[in-house]
Amino acid sequence: MSGLFITIEGPDGAGKTTALNELFPRLEKETNRKVIATREPGGVRISEKIRDLILDPNNEEMDVRTEALLYAAARRQHLIEVIMPALAAGHIVLCDRFVDSSLAYQGAGRRIGIESVAQINEFATEGLQPDFTLYLDIDSDEGLRRIQTSRKAGIDRLETEGLEFHQRVRHAYLKLVEKEPERFSLIHANQDVQEVVNECYTIIKIKYPTFFEE
Amino acid sequence: MSGLFITIEGPDGAGKTTALNELFPRLEKETNRKVIATREPGGVRISEKIRDLILDPNNEEMDVRTEALLYAAARRQHLIEVIMPALAAGHIVLCDRFVDSSLAYQGAGRRIGIESVAQINEFATEGLQPDFTLYLDIDSDEGLRRIQTSRKAGIDRLETEGLEFHQRVRHAYLKLVEKEPERFSLIHANQDVQEVVNECYTIIKIKYPTFFEE
Repeated sequence: MSGLFITIEGPDGAGKTTALNELFPRLEKETNRKVIATREPGGVRISEKIRDLILDPNNEEMDVRTEALLYAAARRQHLIEVIMPALAAGHIVLCDRFVDSSLAYQGAGRRIGIESVAQINEFATEGLQPDFTLYLDIDSDEGLRRIQTSRKAGIDRLETEGLEFHQRVRHAYLKLVEKEPERFSLIHANQDVQEVVNECYTIIKIKYPTFFEE
Repeated sequence: MSGLFITIEGPDGAGKTTALNELFPRLEKETNRKVIATREPGGVRISEKIRDLILDPNNEEMDVRTEALLYAAARRQHLIEVIMPALAAGHIVLCDRFVDSSLAYQGAGRRIGIESVAQINEFATEGLQPDFTLYLDIDSDEGLRRIQTSRKAGIDRLETEGLEFHQRVRHAYLKLVEKEPERFSLIHANQDVQEVVNECYTIIKIKYPTFFEE
């Protein structure tokens, strides 16, 4: 028995976390598997420490390649401690952000190049890919507006980037979706959040009916 | 004007640090350039924090690929903040360990594979290689004996590995030397430390005479 690995991706302000929080109990209730909702660093001690380093606004001198390597390191540890054991046990893993985020944010946003960032992530994941990815799409200005109103207290080092950065991120996501249409479903995220959640839920149910059988 | 990038490599207990401490003042006195002696993390704030994570003996759950990515991240930041500016200013940089250490320790010692570890380090260095590498060679049992008697108080997470690990490390170093004979000089490190230092100094002087001219 092997599990199902679903990731939720999208620019800041697309509402990924809200969507995941709503999807989780529904999948838990309606599927015949245990469901794990997680996001990097996922409560993994070593990954938490790495993430603190990355997001600390005081670490202004951090080079973009250092940042990309740290993301890959935190991802590796979370994968080993949380995702792989859950998949091996046959669970459904619902993960907020994974490798695609690094391709979009570090590869395109930070302009390192998507190919190089893909390579270090290939090292981190040993080629493990999500079975399926929900991409929540949002206009960059709308996404930025949302995070600026909702997170004034705790904006992090990546969210403080300007509009052009976020446009590069979104553009990269759209190219990834275009390149792997089988793996991705694009959901328009500027509709009501309940609509977004319903759409995500329906897509999963249609794509993986055996997980919903009695 | 561009500088000279020299690295010192070798298994634990080969006496790299002692050699570097003795070489540094001699090169400073006898060459016509400023000399920078450094080792990762090299006092670089972000790299220090990454290194603390790697070497903390409590982080037993750390996956070998997480470790390799963290080494590459710390290396990147040290390269950007210390090594590249010094080389750009025309200095001689004398560095205790660099990419070859990761190839030997993570690639061979940890059995990740030298090719994959080379790839993430290529990402970290953007291809920057040392101009020249002094490889201090020592038998694995003699090296281990030395660190066990000299560092009882502060042995780190890598040094606690057993004899077979250290033999794989040494074997990998010897293969690297064989593969790039132009870049490496092998120095037998079980002789008296003063002999080792003299040999290192003489090799540098013969290889780079223009740096010693008045």
